[in-house]
This record gives sequence, structure tokens and C-alpha cells, in this order.
Amino acid sequence: METIQQRFTVSFSYPVLFTTHLFDPSNPQLRLFFETFPGGDFRRKILFCVDAGVLTAYPELPLQAAEYFRSLPMEYIPEWVVLPGGEAAKNDPALFDAIVDAVDQFGIDRHSFVAAIGGGAVLDLVGYAAAVSHRGVKHIRIPTTVLSQNDSGVGVKNGINFRGKKNFLGTFAPPVAVFNDFAFLATLDDRDWRSGISEAIKVALIKDKVFFEWIEANAEALARREEAPMHYLIHRCAALHIDHIGGGDPFESGSARPLDFGHWAAHKLEYLTDFRIRHGEAVAIGIALDTYYSELSGRLTGDDAQRVIKVLLKLGFDLFHPALGEDDCAHLLNGLREFQEHLGGRLTITLLDAVGKGVEVHEMDDTLIRQSVNRLRSSHLAWA
Amino acid sequence: METIQQRFTVSFSYPVLFTTHLFDPSNPQLRLFFETFPGGDFRRKILFCVDAGVLTAYPELPLQAAEYFRSLPMEYIPEWVVLPGGEAAKNDPALFDAIVDAVDQFGIDRHSFVAAIGGGAVLDLVGYAAAVSHRGVKHIRIPTTVLSQNDSGVGVKNGINFRGKKNFLGTFAPPVAVFNDFAFLATLDDRDWRSGISEAIKVALIKDKVFFEWIEANAEALARREEAPMHYLIHRCAALHIDHIGGGDPFESGSARPLDFGHWAAHKLEYLTDFRIRHGEAVAIGIALDTYYSELSGRLTGDDAQRVIKVLLKLGFDLFHPALGEDDCAHLLNGLREFQEHLGGRLTITLLDAVGKGVEVHEMDDTLIRQSVNRLRSSHLAWA
Ligand SMILES: NC(=O)c1ccc[n+]([C@@H]2O[C@H](COP(=O)([O-])OP(=O)(O)OC[C@H]3O[C@@H](n4cnc5c(N)ncnc54)[C@H](O)[C@@H]3O)[C@@H](O)[C@H]2O)c1
Ligand SMILES: NC(=O)c1ccc[n+]([C@@H]2O[C@H](COP(=O)([O-])OP(=O)(O)OC[C@H]3O[C@@H](n4cnc5c(N)ncnc54)[C@H](O)[C@@H]3O)[C@@H](O)[C@H]2O)c1
Ligand SMILES: [Zn+2]
Ligand SMILES: [Zn+2]
Repeated sequence: METIQQRFTVSFSYPVLFTTHLFDPSNPQLRLFFETFPGGDFRRKILFCVDAGVLTAYPELPLQAAEYFRSLPMEYIPEWVVLPGGEAAKNDPALFDAIVDAVDQFGIDRHSFVAAIGGGAVLDLVGYAAAVSHRGVKHIRIPTTVLSQNDSGVGVKNGINFRGKKNFLGTFAPPVAVFNDFAFLATLDDRDWRSGISEAIKVALIKDKVFFEWIEANAEALARREEAPMHYLIHRCAALHIDHIGGGDPFESGSARPLDFGHWAAHKLEYLTDFRIRHGEAVAIGIALDTYYSELSGRLTGDDAQRVIKVLLKLGFDLFHPALGEDDCAHLLNGLREFQEHLGGRLTITLLDAVGKGVEVHEMDDTLIRQSVNRLRSSHLAWA
Repeated sequence: METIQQRFTVSFSYPVLFTTHLFDPSNPQLRLFFETFPGGDFRRKILFCVDAGVLTAYPELPLQAAEYFRSLPMEYIPEWVVLPGGEAAKNDPALFDAIVDAVDQFGIDRHSFVAAIGGGAVLDLVGYAAAVSHRGVKHIRIPTTVLSQNDSGVGVKNGINFRGKKNFLGTFAPPVAVFNDFAFLATLDDRDWRSGISEAIKVALIKDKVFFEWIEANAEALARREEAPMHYLIHRCAALHIDHIGGGDPFESGSARPLDFGHWAAHKLEYLTDFRIRHGEAVAIGIALDTYYSELSGRLTGDDAQRVIKVLLKLGFDLFHPALGEDDCAHLLNGLREFQEHLGGRLTITLLDAVGKGVEVHEMDDTLIRQSVNRLRSSHLAWA
């Protein structure tokens, strides 16, 4: 009997907006968004989920939001779901259940919104719960860290950990909008301010030499926590990520992952340190490692490699961790095998041919990896 | 600062194949599928999850499959995950965890396959677990009931129940292939054989008059469990569902759901009877109710309405349930309100203008609903 072939395409689209003081009564952005959102005759509700770290720093938020939504043509749920910030958000299945319970209790349907305010971890958790409740309620992200504003929060992935396995459960589920409110960054601690900058360096190194040079020129100002350059950095980094995702393979059906430059070692390092180092801090080390590797394997000039190291150091990143070298790098090399497994058996790693020019390779040499680690270790002593 | 607009489309495609004795060594279908599946250089694994009802009826399956896969270029996992059949599969969160654990334990990655063999309930559970493990491992469906072969198994939805709420958690996640093996139907009990036929009547009534006339002509043969007409019915019904999903709004971003003809009452009836009546049995009653309603509201001729009732009766469906009329239809009418809530406040219901011609309406009249129920009740006495 004849085979039937199903075929269709689905279109996705969402704006990423940049603003300050989103809930200020004079800020029109949210109002404009809701007033022009298609399907105005649906009865819509909005439920907020917030990172406890953010709520502590901004305890007035729920009242401000309640006031803001008073004049909007939708039902605002005054009860907020408060979630612990950081990786803890993704480790406890009860938090997932709590969000789904709230969706149920407050009658959030597929035409209503769940908005998440917080760092990348809380956004990943809430995005996942929203994506699978009723097979997907509308999801709004309001990222509050550098990393989530310039990378994780503007993309299409979400996820939680399962029995300690990082991001084991998750979906590809585009939000309906992302609001990057720069005012939140003021209360970040220095590690979180710095951490997300490594994603900008990453994407500049593989795609945009001019942006990398801008980061070099502004490294001190960024390290001093000047606001204007940080706003530019976030906007440009977000734009590069958004272009890449939209222009490529958004739901990652292939195995190439150019945006994962520096990430194979970073992932392993996060595990080896029990997530005591931040994602962005691990990425900085991963970038340094793969930069040295690119040089040692004859791709990158020594001068270019030094520029990369220098900008990372200027920003205050620590570029070595003892876990890298432990047992003659056995753990780290295992991480490479695991990454290969994860990609379905075919390894794809991004290295650098030059500043601003990533290149994909399909194998890495253990000896050169060890040499890169040794070089990081000895430079580290010199830098200190 | 300038808003960035993300926009992209994602293409989906999968074959729905029709066969008998899928794991027979002489059946080339599975072999052909895997040999031509793109990306031959990935190391791929396949993990099977099976409905306990199916395994009891076909205890030789795992051995047959092991033998079949011996000559295929992939790693076959000999341990099968066995899941209780029927709605129980979707009620117990521990079963979801068991599938995710197996994905972890056997190292199923995004380039490997999870295949599900079973009725609609087991397919919904396994499809959900596969869709969220690693943000989606490749999923193959092997439906074994009439309903899952002609409707639920060929579509893009999956789901499980959450705290007793039907399909509260789920995703839209197309499989990579569906293999409809007719040989499985032999061991269905009569209720499950019959139940799925109502979905064919549903889709014929709203879209295909010629198919409806074919069902009328073959109703006795279908009721006698003749195989050839059942195979044709499943193929045609699956084709109509597949066309509709692919041509319309596959991930249901709007609120129109023409394929839900007869379903608003059916859903409520499933709840009111604690899922003691099958989905397809409830749909048959829902079709009868909305057919009378279409007649009473002046859309459908009395002759056409009688044809619908007659074919359902010939097939052996019971067309009334006391829960419909309880408390002067209060529960049923509540079901209509809940359906409206579920659609985001704007009601869309499909009725019939003629046999083969559905029409969308945005309100239903309580009095006419009560009259339709009364008519079903009194006809029921006459039919008995
Ligand atoms: N989905 C993706 O594509 C993707 C990509 C990269 C990383 N991630 C995930 O992102 C997570 C890391 O996110 P992160 O770096 O944003 O950190 P985070 O979410 O772990 O937050 C770090 C800390 O900052 C606090 N915080 C957040 N905003 C604050 C503010 N404005 N003021 C004061 N404190 C604030 C939080 O409460 C938390 O304690 C990881 O779980 C990682 O896996 C996801
Ligand atoms: N995903 C969708 O789009 C969609 C659409 C409609 C219905 N559904 C779901 O489908 C489910 C109903 O599915 P169903 O009607 O296939 O029934 P079912 O899955 O509930 O199975 C009914 C019984 O038949 C047994 N069984 C299955 N195949 C058998 C075989 N070949 N021989 C002997 N016994 C067999 C099962 O073990 C079970 O006991 C419901 O949960 C419903 O919500 C999903
Ligand atoms: Zn990253
Ligand atoms: Zn149905």
C-alpha cells in the first residue's frame, strides 16, 4: 500500500528588544508589544516567574508590574512564582512541577503568556516548563544577566538537569519575545558581570574581527563596569547569535555547532568543578585552551593567540584550573570523547584560523591538547 | 537601541508506511528506511519501547527484531522498555522517568532512535519522553491499534497526563517515520477494533463525501472484522489526517481545529466516565450529538443526519451515555465552557453543512444542545 509522505514547514519569529526599566510607567515597550500582538480577541493572561536573586535585588518589581499591567487589555496574575537562582533552579524537579501547577491553577492556556525574569538558569527552567505545558504556552523572556542577555536568553533552547545530567531534558522552543533590560545588570556581582563577556569574545573570534577589535579597545572600560560599552557589547553579541541561529540550523539537526567554540572543554570543566565555576568563566578557559591549540596545530599565528589571551586577562578572567591537567589530562580528554558521543559519534570542533575566522575540524590530537594545557598552566604562573 | 527581529522556518518531513509483519526477515521496509536515512556516518543506536498489551499478544517480537537488526548497520539495544498499555501509560510519571533513564543508560543521543510499538497511549508517552530527552532524539512510531494507525500515530502531537489532567504535558514533535503494520490488528479486542473507526467517519464527514459513502457501503464488512476494508479505511483516514496537518497549522498556533469535529463532547464524556469509555467510543457519541445539533440548527438535512446515525449503529457503536444528560446537561454544557477556555476564550466548533462538508461556528445554543441530547436518549431506547 502506498507510502504517504508528510512534509511541512513552520515559521517562527520573535523580537529581541533592548531597554532599561521595563516596568517604568513611562516605558512603552511592553505595552506596545501586547497591544500589537496578533489575535487581540483572545482573552489573555500573563503569569510571571522570577529568579529569587533578582527579586531580592528588586523587591519592588511585582508591585511595579501590577501597576504597569493595570492599563493593559489582559489579565495580570498577581501571584508570582519565585524560583531559586543559579544552577539550583535546574536541579530540582519539584520546581518544574511548581511552574506547571501554577499554569494549571491560574488557567494559563496556549493563548496566554508565561514571562520569566532571571538569569540563564531560571530562564532555561521556565522556558522548558512553558514549552511542554499544554504543548506550549506563549513564553516571554526577560534576562537579567550578561550571559542571558547576550547569548542564552536570545536563542531557542531551554532545559533542566536530570539526575545530575546537565540539560538532559529540554526542547527547542522559540519565545514570543525577549526584553533585555540593561538596568538589571547594576546589581550583578562582579563574577556574573564578567562571565557573560566570554560569549561575546567567542562569537567575535569565530565571526567578527571588527567586533573583537572593539572588545580589545574597550576591555578596561568593561572591566571597570562602564555601562555604555556593556550595552553595545550585549547588543552586538546578541545580534551575532540571533543571525547565526536564524541563518543556520536552529533546531540543531546536524552536528556542526560553531557557536560552541571553546565549549567542549568548558562543559567538562563545569562538571569537574561541580559547577562552582560559572559557565562564562569555563568558556573563557575553553577559549584560551582552543586558542593555544589552534596556534600549536599551526592554524593561528602566535601574535593572534596572544591577543586573545591578553583580552581575556584584561577582563579579569582566570585562564587555568587545576582540573584541566589532573591525571595527565585524563578527565579533560574524556570530556572530548563524551562530546563526540553527544554529537552522535562524529566529532566537530571549531578552532581558529585567524581572529574573526572559525574553522571546523573533525579530530583533535591528545598530545597537542596536553601541550596546550601545559602552556596554560605555565602562563598562569607567569600571569599571577 | 535597535530591536533585532529573529525569523526562521524549520522544515519537517516523515514517511508513513503501510505493511504487514514488519520484523519478518523478508520484509524490506525497515531495512530500506535505515539504509537510506541521511547521515550514514553517524554511529546510530535504536532503543525499543513496547506496550505490554502488544508484547503479551506477540511475545516473539523482541527476538524477531534482534534477528532483523543483526544485518543492519546500527547498534540494536536488546533490552526493551515495557510499558503498561492504555491510559495507565500516561498517568504515571515514573514511566516517563523510566524511558529517560533508558535513554541515558544506553547512550541514545540525538542521532539515535527511540522506537515505540503500541496503542495511542503508549505512543503518546514514548513520543513525549523522546521529544524532550536531549531536546529530542529521533522517534519512530509503530502504532498497533486502529486509532493510532489512522489518527493519533500519524500526527505530530504527544503527551502525558499531569495530576489527572489529560495531555497537560506534551509537545508538537514530528516522528522520523511511522510504520503501520496491519498484522497487529488481529489481536485487538472488538472494542479497540471498532473504536478507531469513528475517527474515519469524523474526517470523512467534514472532508470527503466519497469516503463516507465507501464507509456506508463497507460498514457490515468492517463490523465483521474483515481485513481488506479495514486496511483501506486506515490508509484513507491517515491520508486525510496527514494532508490536513501538513496543509494547515501543524503546531496549532490558531484556534481552529476542524479535526476535532465531535470532540468537545467526547473529551468531557471521557472525563465523566473516568476514561472507562474509549476515546473512539466517545467520539462516536460526540459525532452523533453534533450531527443532531447540525440538523436542529438547520444546517444538515434530516436524511443526512440519519445516514450518519445509521452508519455508526451498523458499526456497533453505542450512541448514548447517561452522563450526557445528567443534571439537565449541566456537566456537558460545562464541557463546552471548558473547551472554550482551552481555546483561549474564543470558541470554534466544527459542525456539518452536509455529508463531507464541515463548517466552523463560534457559538452553540444550550437549548439546542439539550434537545440533541434528548433526541439521542430517546433514539437510543428505540435502537435498543
Ligand atoms: N539555553 C541556552 O541556550 C543556554 C546557553 C548558555 C548557557 N545556558 C545556561 O545558563 C545558565 C547560566 O546562566 P547565567 O550565567 O545567566 O547565571 P545564573 O542563571 O546561574 O545566575 C547567576 C546568579 O545571578 C543571580 N542574578 C541573576 N540576575 C541578577 C541580577 N540582575 N542582579 C543580581 N543577581 C542576579 C541569580 O539569582 C544567580 O544567583 C546555565 O544553567 C547554563 O546551562 C543556557
Ligand atoms: N497524539 C494524538 O494526536 C492523539 C489523538 C487521539 C488520541 N490520542 C490518545 O490515544 C490514546 C488512545 O489510544 P488507543 O485507542 O490506540 O488505545 P490505547 O493505547 O489506550 O490501547 C488500548 C488497549 O489495547 C492494547 N493493545 C494495543 N495494541 C494491541 C494489539 N495490537 N493487540 C492487542 N492489544 C493491543 C493496549 O495494551 C491497551 O490495553 C488516548 O490516550 C488518547 O488521548 C492521541
Ligand atoms: Zn555558552
Ligand atoms: Zn480523536
